[in-house]
Amino acid sequence: MAIVMKPGASEEDIKRVIRFVEENYGLRVDVSRGEFQTLLGLIGDEDRVDFDRLALLPGVEKAYRITSPYRLVSRSFFPEDRVIEVKGVKIGGGNRPVFIAGPCAIESREQIFKIAREVKEAGADILRGGAFKPRTSVHSFQGLGEEGLEHLARAGEEFGMPTVSEVRSEKHVEMVAKYVDILQIGARNMYNQDLIEEAARQKKPILIKRNFGASIEEFLSFAERAAAQGNKDIILCERGIIPVGRGRQFTRYILDLSAVPIIRGETYLPIIVDPSHGTGRRDLIYSMSKAAIAAGAHGLMIEVHYNPNEALSDGPQMITPSELKRIIDVCKRIYMLNSED
Amino acid sequence: MAIVMKPGASEEDIKRVIRFVEENYGLRVDVSRGEFQTLLGLIGDEDRVDFDRLALLPGVEKAYRITSPYRLVSRSFFPEDRVIEVKGVKIGGGNRPVFIAGPCAIESREQIFKIAREVKEAGADILRGGAFKPRTSVHSFQGLGEEGLEHLARAGEEFGMPTVSEVRSEKHVEMVAKYVDILQIGARNMYNQDLIEEAARQKKPILIKRNFGASIEEFLSFAERAAAQGNKDIILCERGIIPVGRGRQFTRYILDLSAVPIIRGETYLPIIVDPSHGTGRRDLIYSMSKAAIAAGAHGLMIEVHYNPNEALSDGPQMITPSELKRIIDVCKRIYMLNSED
Amino acid sequence: MAIVMKPGASEEDIKRVIRFVEENYGLRVDVSRGEFQTLLGLIGDEDRVDFDRLALLPGVEKAYRITSPYRLVSRSFFPEDRVIEVKGVKIGGGNRPVFIAGPCAIESREQIFKIAREVKEAGADILRGGAFKPRTSVHSFQGLGEEGLEHLARAGEEFGMPTVSEVRSEKHVEMVAKYVDILQIGARNMYNQDLIEEAARQKKPILIKRNFGASIEEFLSFAERAAAQGNKDIILCERGIIPVGRGRQFTRYILDLSAVPIIRGETYLPIIVDPSHGTGRRDLIYSMSKAAIAAGAHGLMIEVHYNPNEALSDGPQMITPSELKRIIDVCKRIYMLNSED
Amino acid sequence: MAIVMKPGASEEDIKRVIRFVEENYGLRVDVSRGEFQTLLGLIGDEDRVDFDRLALLPGVEKAYRITSPYRLVSRSFFPEDRVIEVKGVKIGGGNRPVFIAGPCAIESREQIFKIAREVKEAGADILRGGAFKPRTSVHSFQGLGEEGLEHLARAGEEFGMPTVSEVRSEKHVEMVAKYVDILQIGARNMYNQDLIEEAARQKKPILIKRNFGASIEEFLSFAERAAAQGNKDIILCERGIIPVGRGRQFTRYILDLSAVPIIRGETYLPIIVDPSHGTGRRDLIYSMSKAAIAAGAHGLMIEVHYNPNEALSDGPQMITPSELKRIIDVCKRIYMLNSED
Repeated sequence: MAIVMKPGASEEDIKRVIRFVEENYGLRVDVSRGEFQTLLGLIGDEDRVDFDRLALLPGVEKAYRITSPYRLVSRSFFPEDRVIEVKGVKIGGGNRPVFIAGPCAIESREQIFKIAREVKEAGADILRGGAFKPRTSVHSFQGLGEEGLEHLARAGEEFGMPTVSEVRSEKHVEMVAKYVDILQIGARNMYNQDLIEEAARQKKPILIKRNFGASIEEFLSFAERAAAQGNKDIILCERGIIPVGRGRQFTRYILDLSAVPIIRGETYLPIIVDPSHGTGRRDLIYSMSKAAIAAGAHGLMIEVHYNPNEALSDGPQMITPSELKRIIDVCKRIYMLNSED
Repeated sequence: MAIVMKPGASEEDIKRVIRFVEENYGLRVDVSRGEFQTLLGLIGDEDRVDFDRLALLPGVEKAYRITSPYRLVSRSFFPEDRVIEVKGVKIGGGNRPVFIAGPCAIESREQIFKIAREVKEAGADILRGGAFKPRTSVHSFQGLGEEGLEHLARAGEEFGMPTVSEVRSEKHVEMVAKYVDILQIGARNMYNQDLIEEAARQKKPILIKRNFGASIEEFLSFAERAAAQGNKDIILCERGIIPVGRGRQFTRYILDLSAVPIIRGETYLPIIVDPSHGTGRRDLIYSMSKAAIAAGAHGLMIEVHYNPNEALSDGPQMITPSELKRIIDVCKRIYMLNSED
Repeated sequence: MAIVMKPGASEEDIKRVIRFVEENYGLRVDVSRGEFQTLLGLIGDEDRVDFDRLALLPGVEKAYRITSPYRLVSRSFFPEDRVIEVKGVKIGGGNRPVFIAGPCAIESREQIFKIAREVKEAGADILRGGAFKPRTSVHSFQGLGEEGLEHLARAGEEFGMPTVSEVRSEKHVEMVAKYVDILQIGARNMYNQDLIEEAARQKKPILIKRNFGASIEEFLSFAERAAAQGNKDIILCERGIIPVGRGRQFTRYILDLSAVPIIRGETYLPIIVDPSHGTGRRDLIYSMSKAAIAAGAHGLMIEVHYNPNEALSDGPQMITPSELKRIIDVCKRIYMLNSED
Repeated sequence: MAIVMKPGASEEDIKRVIRFVEENYGLRVDVSRGEFQTLLGLIGDEDRVDFDRLALLPGVEKAYRITSPYRLVSRSFFPEDRVIEVKGVKIGGGNRPVFIAGPCAIESREQIFKIAREVKEAGADILRGGAFKPRTSVHSFQGLGEEGLEHLARAGEEFGMPTVSEVRSEKHVEMVAKYVDILQIGARNMYNQDLIEEAARQKKPILIKRNFGASIEEFLSFAERAAAQGNKDIILCERGIIPVGRGRQFTRYILDLSAVPIIRGETYLPIIVDPSHGTGRRDLIYSMSKAAIAAGAHGLMIEVHYNPNEALSDGPQMITPSELKRIIDVCKRIYMLNSED
C-alpha cells in the first residue's frame, strides 16, 4: 500500500500515520520525502490493512492498494492457462474455441431435442437452455423449471453434449447441479456473492457472466469469490456493458471485446463471449462472433432456435442452426489464423 | 404500441403487419400514412403483444411501447401519495421527512444499543443495522447474522424505533422478516426478482435501493414486481449511480438527486436518499443530505457510529450521532421551506 | 510519482528503473521492498517525468501520478476562496448566491430588453443570452450573432446587470469579448483547449461548463489551462452528465450535485449550477435549484423567457420570470440556513 | 412524428394538439384511440415540427421523432456504399481494407520520412501524423505546427501515400487543407459543429472520430452536418468510449466494435477503427485490429514509430513498423474470409 500525504501535511501527521500502521497492522513503513509531498510505502501483508480507515487520518491525501483484489485467479501468480474439461470437452488454453449453443428457454422436450440435434450437427460442443428465466416483465414466460432441466439433461446425453443452464436463486443451486454440467451465473447476479459461492461449492464448473455495469476489476473480484471456495473451474463470459450517450440506442448493450485480451492477460481462466445477449440483434451476431474469436476469445455462447420468430423468449437475438454452422465454420478459420501467430 | 414502417416498406409489408397483429393479438390497427413513412397505431391491451417479435417483421423500422412497464406503481393510475406506516412512523406523503439511522454493520449488543440510544436522541425515527453484509472482498467482516438481527430488534424495542435491515439471500427472507419491520433489498440485488418477490410476500414494507447501473425506468419496473405480489408498501431509495469520465474519481458513486423529483412524478411511492453509500465520504454527507431534502426526498438513510474510525465496516462513510443531529435539524428547516410553497 | 513493480520483477528490473529515472529526470528514488512487491518513490519535480514511458519499462506494474493535474487552481496550494467581481456583482466566497438568468437565445432587441427587465425585477444579478447556439440539427435557429450581442450589452447596461454569453468558436472570441462581461465556454467545448486558452487571454472572467462525459478531474484540468494563461477569474458550472441504464430516460442529463461540495473542496474557484440544461425539464428546475444551493453552489444559471412556449430555442427548459422569482426567494432562504452553520 | 397522449387526457386536450399541429406546421393528424391512451400520427415533413414544444401541450405524454436525424448520410435513402478515392487509394465499399499509419506526432523531417518509408514497406496505404496535438497537460509536447505539415506532405509525396492530419482549430482549417489530403476531426471536437462545417467546405475528404461519450446516433448526426455542406466524402472512425464500472481501469477507453456493423447498416459511409487510441495499450493493438476487421471495418488507423519508447507523445500506444506488417498481413487474411461469405 502506498500512502500519499497532502502537500501541507505536518511532520506530526506523518508520524501519526506511521505509528497507526505499525501498531494496528504490524507493518513497516518506508518514507520517501518529495519536494512537495511525502510518500509512505507499507511493507507487509496488505490484506490486513483497512484501506479506507487509513485514508481518514489527518494529512493523508490518497491511499493506493498495491496488491490485486484477485490473487487466486491472477495470472501473475499462476501463469499457465487453465483448461477446464467437461465430459471430454476442453475449455480454455490453446485448444480450438468451444461453441455453446441452444435456445434461450427450454420450451418442451421436443423443442430441446430438436435444437440439440441441430446444433450438434452444426458443430456445437455444449448445449445450453434456460429453465428459470430472469425477466423484467412479470407477464413474460418464466421457464419450465425443473422439468426443463430434465429435458435438457436427456437431450445432452442423447447427443453427447455437456450442458449448461443458469441458476438464478440460491434455493435452486443444488437441484440445478443435479441436472447440468456447468452452472451459469447470469449478468444480473454477478454481484450476488452468496449465489456465486453456493454454486462454486457444487464441485462443478461455473460460468460467470460480467454484469453490464461492472468494470473488469470488479468482474475478476467476484470470480475470486468462487475460487476462494476451492473451485477454480470458472469460465468467464463477456456479454455487453451499458451503452453511452444520448438518443436512440441501436443495441441494449455494447459488447466489450477489448475485455477479452485484457482478461487473458489478467487471469489464467478461460474467457468466452456471448454475442446474443451482447448485441440483442440477430443481424449482428455473425460479425461480432468473428470479432470475438479474432480478439482471442476461448469460445462463444450463442442462442439458437429452429424458428427464432416463434421462440417464447428472446426471439430477436436467436439465430437458426444453419446460421450457427456458418459462424462456427468461419470462426474456426479465424482461430487458425490466430494460432499460426 | 406504435409501429413505424421503414421508408421503403411496401404495401404488402404493411398489410402483413396488420394481419399479424389482428390474428395473433386480436388488436385493431390504425394506419397513418406519412410523406416518407407509415405509422401504425395498435388499439387494445399492449401487454398481449410480443414487442420484439413485431420488430422482426419485414418493413418494420421501430416499434414503440406506449404503456408504461410499471402501471401498478404509476402515479398516472393512482394519483395520491402512498403513506406507509410502521409502528407509528409515517413514510411518504406530506409528512415531515423520515430519518433512518444506525451503523453499517451490527457489531455487538452493546454497539447497537449504544448507537440506537444516540440516534434516537439525535432525532432518528427508524433504526438500521446490517447483519449480512455484501462485501467485495472475501476477507472483510461479513456480519453477525441472525444474532445481529436479534440485537437490532431488541434495540428497536428498547428505544421505540421500528427497524430495517438488508436481506441478501432468498434463504434468509423469512428469518429476517421475523426480526425486522422493513426488509431492505440492496442495490446489488435490485435486479434479483426472486429475492424482491419473496421479500414482498412477507407482508411487511420493503425498501428497494436503486442499482448503480439502472435507469429510473428499470428501477420502477422492479418495484412493480414487488407490487405484483400484492404488497404496495414499497419505499424506494436512491443511493448513487456509476460515475462518468476518466481519471481519478472522488466518490465511488454519483448521487442522482434529479431522480427524486422525477420519481415523485412517476409514482406515488415514497422515495428516500442514502447519502452515506451515495457518496462514500463522511465530509459530503451534510451537504448532500440538505440537497436531497431540498430536492423533495421523503427521508434519508444515514450510517452512524459513535466512533466511525473504529467501525468494522464502512467507517469512511459513517458520521457521529452529533453530526446526525445537525443534519436532522437543518433538514427539518429546509423541509419547512418546501412545505410553505 | 510512485512506481509499483510486478510481483515477479527482478533485482535487475528495479535497478534499471532507478537508473532510468536518475539519468533522464535527475530525480532521486526511494525503494520500499514489500513482501510481494516493491514500491519506488520518486523525489523531485514530477512534471519532468514521462509517466507513460516509465510504465513501459520491464517489471513495472503501475505508475501513479502523485501531484495533481490542476495545481494552479488547487485549494491545496491556495486555500482561500476566490471572489470574482464583475461590475459590482461578486461571485464566489461567502457572499450570497449569484443568479444568472435570461433567455436561451437572444431573439430580438425587444425580447432581450423585456426579459432583462423582468429577471432584474425577479432578483437576478447577471443577464445571460445566446447569440451563437450550438445545435444538433442543422435546421434549428442558430442565433442572431453579433447583432444579438449588441442587444444583450445594451440590455445589460439599461438594467444594470453584467452579461454572459457563450463563445463557440475561436474566430469569435475577440468580438464576443467586446460585448460581454463574462465569456462562457459551453459543455461541448470543455475539451477545446484552444478556445479555452483564447478566451482566457481576453482578461475577462470566463465561465466553463463541465462536459457531460467528463470526470471532475478532467473538468478541473481544463480549468487549469485557463489559469495557465494568467487568468484565474474562472467560474465553473455543473450542468449534467450522461444518464446510466437502459430504457426510457426522463432527462437528457443527470445533474451531478455531489460535484458541488467535491469541487469546493478541490479548488478555490466558484462553482455554480445550471438546472435548465442539467434537467432539460421546466418542472424539475425549482426542486433542483433548491438542491443545488443546499449542496453549496455559489449560484445558479437559469434560462428564463416571458413565454417559454414561444421561445425559438430550448422552450421546454425555460421558466417564466415569476417562477424565477420564486426560486430566488427560496434559494436565498436555504442559503441563509447554510451560512448559519 | 407520433404523439402519445396521457391516460387521463381529455377530448379537449386531443383537439388542442391537433389544432396546434395543423395551424403551426400545416400537417395532417391521424388519431388512433387505444383502450387507455390515444396515439396521434403526424403526416408530412417532420422537420418543420418543434418536437419539444409539442411535448409541452396539456395532455401530451411523449412525442416521438420518426424520421432519422441523419437522412443525408442514411443508408435508407442511399443504399449503396460510398467509395472515397484519394490519390488512387480507395476507402469504403467492397475493396480491401485501408491501412492508415504513422506517428502520433511529427517530430522532425527525418522522423516522418523514416516512418513513412517503413510503414509503406509494411503495407500501409495512407500516412498519418499530428502537427497540432490536443493535450490535457499544458506542459506536454504540442506539435510542430505548419512546419510539421510540410514535412508530412513531402514524406507522403516521396513514398506515394496520401496524408491525413488532425485539424484542431477553425483558424487552421484552410492552412492544414493546403498540405494534407484528408482532414481529421478529433474525438474531442466531434461536437464542434463549426469546425466540422469549416473542414467539410474545404472540398477534401474528412475523417471524423466518434466522441467517447457520444451515442452512434449523435455521431451520425454530426456527420450529417458535414454532408449538409455538400461534402459526402466522410470517413467515420470508432476510437473508444468511456469505460463503465468502478475500480482500476485497464484501458482509457473501451473500443466499441459493435458500432462497426451497426454503422455499416445505418449509413453508406466507410467506417474505420483506431485501435491505438481505442485501447491506449500497445499489447492490445494486434488483437483489436484483427477483431475490428473481423467485425467489418473498412480499415484501421494505427500509430507507428520506429522507437515507440522514445516518441515525444503517446509512446505507450505506438507499435513498430514490423508489428504493423504483422497486423496488415493477418488482417488481409481475415478480410478475405469475410469476402468469401
